[in-house]
Amino acid sequence: MGIHHYFKSLSDLEKIYRCPGKFKFQEHSVASHSFKVTKIAQFLGTVEEMDGQTVDWRLLYEKALNHDYAELFTGDIKTPVKYASKELKRLFNEVEEEMTRKFVEKEFPPEFQKIYLGRFKEGKDDTLEGRILAVADKIDLLYESFGEIQKENPEPLFMEIYEEALSTILLFKDMTCVQYFLDEILPEMLRERFIEQSELTAITERMIEESRNQ
Amino acid sequence: MGIHHYFKSLSDLEKIYRCPGKFKFQEHSVASHSFKVTKIAQFLGTVEEMDGQTVDWRLLYEKALNHDYAELFTGDIKTPVKYASKELKRLFNEVEEEMTRKFVEKEFPPEFQKIYLGRFKEGKDDTLEGRILAVADKIDLLYESFGEIQKENPEPLFMEIYEEALSTILLFKDMTCVQYFLDEILPEMLRERFIEQSELTAITERMIEESRNQ
Amino acid sequence: MGIHHYFKSLSDLEKIYRCPGKFKFQEHSVASHSFKVTKIAQFLGTVEEMDGQTVDWRLLYEKALNHDYAELFTGDIKTPVKYASKELKRLFNEVEEEMTRKFVEKEFPPEFQKIYLGRFKEGKDDTLEGRILAVADKIDLLYESFGEIQKENPEPLFMEIYEEALSTILLFKDMTCVQYFLDEILPEMLRERFIEQSELTAITERMIEESRNQ
Amino acid sequence: MGIHHYFKSLSDLEKIYRCPGKFKFQEHSVASHSFKVTKIAQFLGTVEEMDGQTVDWRLLYEKALNHDYAELFTGDIKTPVKYASKELKRLFNEVEEEMTRKFVEKEFPPEFQKIYLGRFKEGKDDTLEGRILAVADKIDLLYESFGEIQKENPEPLFMEIYEEALSTILLFKDMTCVQYFLDEILPEMLRERFIEQSELTAITERMIEESRNQ
Amino acid sequence: MGIHHYFKSLSDLEKIYRCPGKFKFQEHSVASHSFKVTKIAQFLGTVEEMDGQTVDWRLLYEKALNHDYAELFTGDIKTPVKYASKELKRLFNEVEEEMTRKFVEKEFPPEFQKIYLGRFKEGKDDTLEGRILAVADKIDLLYESFGEIQKENPEPLFMEIYEEALSTILLFKDMTCVQYFLDEILPEMLRERFIEQSELTAITERMIEESRNQ
Amino acid sequence: MGIHHYFKSLSDLEKIYRCPGKFKFQEHSVASHSFKVTKIAQFLGTVEEMDGQTVDWRLLYEKALNHDYAELFTGDIKTPVKYASKELKRLFNEVEEEMTRKFVEKEFPPEFQKIYLGRFKEGKDDTLEGRILAVADKIDLLYESFGEIQKENPEPLFMEIYEEALSTILLFKDMTCVQYFLDEILPEMLRERFIEQSELTAITERMIEESRNQ
Repeated sequence: MGIHHYFKSLSDLEKIYRCPGKFKFQEHSVASHSFKVTKIAQFLGTVEEMDGQTVDWRLLYEKALNHDYAELFTGDIKTPVKYASKELKRLFNEVEEEMTRKFVEKEFPPEFQKIYLGRFKEGKDDTLEGRILAVADKIDLLYESFGEIQKENPEPLFMEIYEEALSTILLFKDMTCVQYFLDEILPEMLRERFIEQSELTAITERMIEESRNQ
Repeated sequence: MGIHHYFKSLSDLEKIYRCPGKFKFQEHSVASHSFKVTKIAQFLGTVEEMDGQTVDWRLLYEKALNHDYAELFTGDIKTPVKYASKELKRLFNEVEEEMTRKFVEKEFPPEFQKIYLGRFKEGKDDTLEGRILAVADKIDLLYESFGEIQKENPEPLFMEIYEEALSTILLFKDMTCVQYFLDEILPEMLRERFIEQSELTAITERMIEESRNQ
Repeated sequence: MGIHHYFKSLSDLEKIYRCPGKFKFQEHSVASHSFKVTKIAQFLGTVEEMDGQTVDWRLLYEKALNHDYAELFTGDIKTPVKYASKELKRLFNEVEEEMTRKFVEKEFPPEFQKIYLGRFKEGKDDTLEGRILAVADKIDLLYESFGEIQKENPEPLFMEIYEEALSTILLFKDMTCVQYFLDEILPEMLRERFIEQSELTAITERMIEESRNQ
Repeated sequence: MGIHHYFKSLSDLEKIYRCPGKFKFQEHSVASHSFKVTKIAQFLGTVEEMDGQTVDWRLLYEKALNHDYAELFTGDIKTPVKYASKELKRLFNEVEEEMTRKFVEKEFPPEFQKIYLGRFKEGKDDTLEGRILAVADKIDLLYESFGEIQKENPEPLFMEIYEEALSTILLFKDMTCVQYFLDEILPEMLRERFIEQSELTAITERMIEESRNQ
Repeated sequence: MGIHHYFKSLSDLEKIYRCPGKFKFQEHSVASHSFKVTKIAQFLGTVEEMDGQTVDWRLLYEKALNHDYAELFTGDIKTPVKYASKELKRLFNEVEEEMTRKFVEKEFPPEFQKIYLGRFKEGKDDTLEGRILAVADKIDLLYESFGEIQKENPEPLFMEIYEEALSTILLFKDMTCVQYFLDEILPEMLRERFIEQSELTAITERMIEESRNQ
Repeated sequence: MGIHHYFKSLSDLEKIYRCPGKFKFQEHSVASHSFKVTKIAQFLGTVEEMDGQTVDWRLLYEKALNHDYAELFTGDIKTPVKYASKELKRLFNEVEEEMTRKFVEKEFPPEFQKIYLGRFKEGKDDTLEGRILAVADKIDLLYESFGEIQKENPEPLFMEIYEEALSTILLFKDMTCVQYFLDEILPEMLRERFIEQSELTAITERMIEESRNQ
């Protein structure tokens, strides 16, 4: 029993890779996904705050930081499995909660148990902070799938993930931070361009030409 | 729809790594695990046959080769989750079967569907072939955990896996092939030794000495 | 001496990577190649059987499972080297057989030696099972090279491998299973399409538009 | 210009590996290090709060989350270089600040610039939150080096890193959370034990014996 | 103290990866970069020699082989940092020299110190050999960036590196070996072509057709 | 045809890993092996020169740099195969030479062919430079195997490689540079020590104690 096991478990999250069983050009661990989601949530919260909303920052950071900690116990189970049936989804959530509760009761001294049970709870509720988390989680997923599509991964799954992520984000389209994302960030992402080999030849020839004329 | 998707899916099994979320010195994919289990089952079947048992080789190979194909749909879910409760285990199996059935119906032309539904069924039944598969699966797991322990992986999980694998093998101790494993193979595995750095110095000095005297 | 060394050697096949010395997006080990070839052979055998041929399944599985085991002793030597001259090819085969024989005699107890010498022999003979193996081996190679071409690997070698694999498959065009592959599976593989970034923009805009109108 | 570049840069932190140029059994990226430091800071802050201190949680999370963001511009430069001379250290910090300022001014719209300049500033000041960050950063470094020592990495550097991390933590020994770490967590970490191969033999024999007597 | 530490340090150069913090399809270590630069310098020197120049081969090899050894102490610091200001560049060089000097004095016996201080000095001076090194270093960098562009790495940095490398090479356009590179090698590199999937279909159909007609 | 293909081939040497088919903690490519051998040869040549020998440095560097280039065509074939029989060894060398000759004639313009045929020839002849290369090649192999033994790789092969490398070095024991290696470098390598976890506890306790007393 002890906090040492909790600290050590953080490193296990570096060894759980997202979306197992598909060829990817770039792998992402649950640990670095959690980092990126928290950073994105920080930005989204800032937009909301500038718009006049009151953000409970402590709550927002707690939700974002811990939102996938339970994958320590279950791994990154493929989404279609998790949600294959309503009954399975319900049962699956129960199991996750049960395993988390057991871990907290086994590893945390009594004085910390209530706090950490709260921290490890499902964070995507109807509060402003829960909604920001839901959006931030999908924005990182959208970036992950965009990264594969952009590198020309032929696997159609990444297109499905992109669409699924975007459609979830759109569910929150009434939020100022989602409007900001749709108006300012997403178009910039889509405008990213590629270097074609034909350009390479043109650039090279221009550079050699210019060098000659100096 | 089509067999092409089935052939392509075999390569996805190369990207599902066993026992996610733990530091390992050597990773093993579901594809290469399946290969090793089939080779081990081949040996165990040979022992049984030499002992006078009738082995249905076609059945044995089918069981061994396909025994983890359903992980394509579910990933390598952590065992404690899978078996966290009897209810979950039952439901989980139902989901796996359901997803496999859907895949077969979607990807296989009608004339192949019945054959492949049979091949992808849980293979560990009470037949001789089902029991050989159960043992072969655990022997490979035992080798995987032994490989980590031998490389001095400090994670206690691998000791637990070793013990769990061995205790399952022992459930089949009435089988000739299990006796052969316990009497002939396991002791040899445990006798494996290490080179100590102190030996290195001794060997080096002896070799230099011998070279001097030539 | 002992079966333990044989079991342990299976894991070495996970560390021999096919086609060394070329940049690949996805590596394939001899272990997982053997798994895939056996699965493909299983399908091809099924097609032959449905066509009325008698398949010796035990033999087919033995051939497929063990067809590259001798690479344990030689590694995956580049094909052009192996076949640089008829004399070398002959000598090379002799060496492989000799090393396999020595391994079997050293590691296998006498009662298993004859069986395993048979299993480790070159399997691509003129039997139906030997011909299925020859085709299955090349189909997996074709998929490996297609995977690189599809991911836009600029190395022309993969085009050469694709052509070499296809032309070998075509040598067996009188087989029903090869006709099935050419008529049903290969066209489906070639129809695989890519997501272009331009589509991404169109899809995104459509989804946002639809969301607005809800 | 745009937030898209900021979001995309988060993924670059997944590609900067800590402590380059030394063999490690387990690599750690700046992204996952940042995640772990934030989680550890959360625990340390909880200990302080339970002890009656007032923790500015928003500030603590901001400091922890962003403390290594500037490595995006400089990479993980080897510590001895960074601090080779006081003059270099001063200059190096200036350069880091300058590059961060330029990035913020180039990529962030004006309304966010002040906020992010604050967030990306060096966080290890004399506030309670700055001190917690300093400790959390070194606790993760101590775990990273312990992980290598425990896996028997022969490189003496990891012992030096362990000692350097511990001696920095000890500078903060007046803090309650550091006392908690020294009294409750560190001893537990050091008590971690290894499985020896000799034990393996004993355990195996006991299990087989027990199985026989059933 | 001792040459053993020098020999061992060579392996650390295998663990320093060039251009950290960016997604790359193919990583290159400082060790293999040094190998390639030396091989390229050998070719460039050969061209110069055939043109009638006198090449001090010993000096050329020493310069090429050792030109990045100091990265052992500093890592592969991002170029923009290194040259963020003239003052920093000067200081950075001083630090590198100082650390190299300390290493030589600590690890090399006195009789070797002067020789190795000479060998580890910045080699890109105005001698023919220094200029060949400058060109060879950039040719390898150009190949590294071309490799990423050719594999369709969407990161614009590689285009910048390509241009920076080429513009440095063009500074030496008065050298015969640079003319050879620009006239004979670079155009060949740019002519490299890709296999399009559409071609694949055409080739496949042609091969099947030809096989039919045999 | 062209030097571009020669330059590009250098990068293929980064993808040929030495000693395929065995678990290793640290992989080494032919490219970085070649770099290290050249650096070691540089040192050994320096020792010989200081002893009064005349070293043909150009020749030494050419031999060391190019000594494994032919592995581009053959891969790193397992040594036992290569030397399974005298006849095979002879044939194998012939094939290597033939393939190298063909490559040079295909890729190098006529004016460079003779030079490069010379450079790619087997370099381990009876000249001082050929003997230095033979020793340097084995010293790097000895370091590679020592690295695995030191990290406690349980595979006995590495002990065999260590012994084979050392016994070859001892064949050249009449050379001053080999004496230097045996007297000054090897003992230092063998004196390398490990940090034991028990020490870690002692060091930690001492540091905490000292911190208390300040």
